Amino acid sequence: MSANATPIEYVSASPAVRAVYDDIMATRNTDWVNNYWKILAHHPPTLRRMWANSKEVMGAGALDPLTKELIYMAVSITNGCRYCIASHGFAARHKGMTPQQHAELVAIVGLANETNRHAFALDLPIDERFR
Amino acid sequence: MSANATPIEYVSASPAVRAVYDDIMATRNTDWVNNYWKILAHHPPTLRRMWANSKEVMGAGALDPLTKELIYMAVSITNGCRYCIASHGFAARHKGMTPQQHAELVAIVGLANETNRHAFALDLPIDERFR
Amino acid sequence: MSANATPIEYVSASPAVRAVYDDIMATRNTDWVNNYWKILAHHPPTLRRMWANSKEVMGAGALDPLTKELIYMAVSITNGCRYCIASHGFAARHKGMTPQQHAELVAIVGLANETNRHAFALDLPIDERFR
Amino acid sequence: MSANATPIEYVSASPAVRAVYDDIMATRNTDWVNNYWKILAHHPPTLRRMWANSKEVMGAGALDPLTKELIYMAVSITNGCRYCIASHGFAARHKGMTPQQHAELVAIVGLANETNRHAFALDLPIDERFR
Amino acid sequence: MSANATPIEYVSASPAVRAVYDDIMATRNTDWVNNYWKILAHHPPTLRRMWANSKEVMGAGALDPLTKELIYMAVSITNGCRYCIASHGFAARHKGMTPQQHAELVAIVGLANETNRHAFALDLPIDERFR
Amino acid sequence: MSANATPIEYVSASPAVRAVYDDIMATRNTDWVNNYWKILAHHPPTLRRMWANSKEVMGAGALDPLTKELIYMAVSITNGCRYCIASHGFAARHKGMTPQQHAELVAIVGLANETNRHAFALDLPIDERFR
Repeated sequence: MSANATPIEYVSASPAVRAVYDDIMATRNTDWVNNYWKILAHHPPTLRRMWANSKEVMGAGALDPLTKELIYMAVSITNGCRYCIASHGFAARHKGMTPQQHAELVAIVGLANETNRHAFALDLPIDERFR
Repeated sequence: MSANATPIEYVSASPAVRAVYDDIMATRNTDWVNNYWKILAHHPPTLRRMWANSKEVMGAGALDPLTKELIYMAVSITNGCRYCIASHGFAARHKGMTPQQHAELVAIVGLANETNRHAFALDLPIDERFR
Repeated sequence: MSANATPIEYVSASPAVRAVYDDIMATRNTDWVNNYWKILAHHPPTLRRMWANSKEVMGAGALDPLTKELIYMAVSITNGCRYCIASHGFAARHKGMTPQQHAELVAIVGLANETNRHAFALDLPIDERFR
Repeated sequence: MSANATPIEYVSASPAVRAVYDDIMATRNTDWVNNYWKILAHHPPTLRRMWANSKEVMGAGALDPLTKELIYMAVSITNGCRYCIASHGFAARHKGMTPQQHAELVAIVGLANETNRHAFALDLPIDERFR
Repeated sequence: MSANATPIEYVSASPAVRAVYDDIMATRNTDWVNNYWKILAHHPPTLRRMWANSKEVMGAGALDPLTKELIYMAVSITNGCRYCIASHGFAARHKGMTPQQHAELVAIVGLANETNRHAFALDLPIDERFR
Repeated sequence: MSANATPIEYVSASPAVRAVYDDIMATRNTDWVNNYWKILAHHPPTLRRMWANSKEVMGAGALDPLTKELIYMAVSITNGCRYCIASHGFAARHKGMTPQQHAELVAIVGLANETNRHAFALDLPIDERFR
């Protein structure tokens, strides 16, 4: 796994890597795998580990699938990660995010980044009721 | 408004500041105002402006109120803003966030911050299907 | 130099460290040295190097001294560095920053952090005229 | 408003959007509008809200217009926001920023980001005099 | 798992949680467990998952254990995470980090954060030879 | 020095700039200079200052040269600085970083960014033993 590595396609993947790709496609009910996994595949233990984490964290739980994607996007927008915004924006639209919801997400992420800096600048003491 | 400013309490606030405090309490159906606003009050135009923004962005819309708070928390955790995590964690619990949902939020925010760095490190090319 | 190191006071400092402290006090026309330097002093090459950098970058130039401090604060607020906000806020007030100017600084830093995230979220193409 | 949205040009804009564009051009005494606003225009309430914020925060005040732009750039450089660095760099040059001033800005922003991390690493106790 | 949760001590832990604590102590050849794990323990699946990740990523590999801790600290210092700097600074000292090495680590992390901003500010084109 | 400045090549550089370029090439035992320095060259005092800092901080010390580059990369990946990841990745490979070591670096940086956010989210109290 080196920077600017070439994605490893299914046809040239080892059986261990193919097994992960197969599970990604089955879990997502789709016929393709995105570059994140195809580049992680240069280091199979990381591919296996990250897919297991992703499946557990983003899978069914107390938060619905769309909310999970919105949280993911909020982080990715804050960090300015272009790939992550594109991939999780795609996933969110696939899970039903409307343009109106996207506009609200962007507005909240912007506002939170603003007020976070007000809190830093003013060294706000945490209110007793919040503890 | 200076660093380590003293919060301005209702009793010593100007009528313009009181008007904002009154609207905050009415909108939130509560009897108190948290330090963020009481310290912004040293500069009334900022107090007025930020409350107007907050009310519009966090008010009723296409995303439900709890989801909005979770997005706010995701940003605040990513930035390490203690005050913001405390205040929006309080708001989220008030709007029904369960301990299980909180645990999932924390897990997603952690995972997204991890994979964001994988994407940076590997300079991932954005998949054609994501555009 | 280790975490939670004790500040090295003038009386117990080596001649090389005292020489830097003397220059800090002479340059700033003051009789004390703040903790940043007194803790860096555990590694004298870093103390010497950072003071030389600071003196050159923050010294007289095309930007006036107060503007330089405001820029420093903008960075420190964005990063949430409590020590840096406190020390450069002190320096800025010493150089004439008024409460009104401080309030405007905080507002700009907040707004910029907000619009930065809008730009990330929307993957804005850079306008031809900006190039 | 979705990622990779097409900028909405004046000729195809609604009257509400045109009114904001008109005010942007009149306020800036120019004949064009940059992409930030033309993409926000997919969600008119955000367009209106952000322009009102920007006009208030970046307008006449206790800090001169160039200083305001330099603060904006300091934030944008710290966050690595390419669009924002380009747009506010353009604005700063328009308001008189010289190459020498730009070089000093870059040097200060770099230095502040460096010393911010020294402060984090060493967990510096805030000096009594700074409080 | 909620903010400001109480650490779960061994005596009051469930068998599943105790099993992770036992493995942490055995792997580290020590008799105690730090707060990170004792607070994650409020959500056993996250405790189990994160310990498995940590053990795999920080275990024996192509990078020696001290280098791994220094990389961990570089990230934590950049993010300003006090807990992480304290815990991984402890681990690094335990694995042999000298005060001189610590001083060099802090200097490099500061310098890298500085030059990162120069690169952002100047929008540096990547040299052909680096590709 | 302005944004999108043209790199200053050796043939058109002033004697003062050439002296720095010569030292860079001699120190690195190579025949070329990368864009970071060629663009800093628009402001010779910054060129001279940063090269002196870089030479001192990244030169021989208590940490070996490869470890220094890995720490530099950890910061650059965390900040998402493409140029810096490319240039220090090149330097690290030149100093012997193997693909396996690179994969482990990426995994550690990802994990540390994840656990940093867990620490922020849970507001972890620092263990007494870490102090």
